[in-house]
Amino acid sequence: MTALEAIFQRRCYRGKYKPVPVPREHLKIILEAGLAAPSGCNLQTTSLIAVDDPALLNQLQALSHSPAVKTAPALLFVLTRRVIAYEDKCFAVQDYAAAIENMLLALTELGYRSCWYEGHVTGPNRLGYRMAQLLSVPDEYELVCMLPVGVAEDAVPAPEKKPFEKRACFNGFSL
Amino acid sequence: MTALEAIFQRRCYRGKYKPVPVPREHLKIILEAGLAAPSGCNLQTTSLIAVDDPALLNQLQALSHSPAVKTAPALLFVLTRRVIAYEDKCFAVQDYAAAIENMLLALTELGYRSCWYEGHVTGPNRLGYRMAQLLSVPDEYELVCMLPVGVAEDAVPAPEKKPFEKRACFNGFSL
Repeated sequence: MTALEAIFQRRCYRGKYKPVPVPREHLKIILEAGLAAPSGCNLQTTSLIAVDDPALLNQLQALSHSPAVKTAPALLFVLTRRVIAYEDKCFAVQDYAAAIENMLLALTELGYRSCWYEGHVTGPNRLGYRMAQLLSVPDEYELVCMLPVGVAEDAVPAPEKKPFEKRACFNGFSL
Repeated sequence: MTALEAIFQRRCYRGKYKPVPVPREHLKIILEAGLAAPSGCNLQTTSLIAVDDPALLNQLQALSHSPAVKTAPALLFVLTRRVIAYEDKCFAVQDYAAAIENMLLALTELGYRSCWYEGHVTGPNRLGYRMAQLLSVPDEYELVCMLPVGVAEDAVPAPEKKPFEKRACFNGFSL
């Protein structure tokens, strides 16, 4: 699968996963893809945890009502440190978003599906905080995103998108 | 080039570009790749402008001292609208960062190099604001990033990165 094919075939999948394990070597490649993303001033503010241990998975899955999270054979967690990179600027969000996109493309190429769970994790019910406790994440790291990984049980529809001409233009603003 | 190859071969390039044009069809593919990125609640907060018109390029390049920007045969600009997506959350930064990473991978596959110019653009000298004026960008859009695109004149060294074990782990935090 070319990079462009992965970019255009990536989807957000919120359904159930097949009970097919994700081999550890695939998880490692996905994590490496995430770490290969650029970061502001090369500060590498993003760290990652993959979970495939069944007992730990069960504990984490018990905290969520999402069919995707509950049935995923592996979960990836994205941690950040919100440090200043340049003058008064922190690029931690940009850094982890680029890392997440890399992981989504890598897992698409490997035949898996996922979904970017961020609002669900950092919302008022503090799901991310409770998951971070189960994962023994120290206070200086913030758990900001969870990515289930697995083979989708159902078809994955494409989202409705605005047409190209409403979002992109050449040689000056004309949207 | 597979998605994983593009992910691992992408580099930040700050040197000069060869005087080789980037065909309009390549620019369009790169923009489409950016727009294919996910966005929080599918709000599609990211918009894009590509510039390949020589007169407009000259005006924009006159505002920067970067050898990459000054010699690039095309410049891409990333615009955002910081709207609330979910409860009190705005995912505009995540949205445009994922779009930028997609574009960086797409242009890598097409044989080009780029660099994520964000701090340079949104810094205190208001370069992004002045570029947005040249591009007739309305006030409700914020210009947050510029990506030069072209064929690199020089070799592109890999950045120094922390080892995998310092940034990623399995089944609990152990960094």
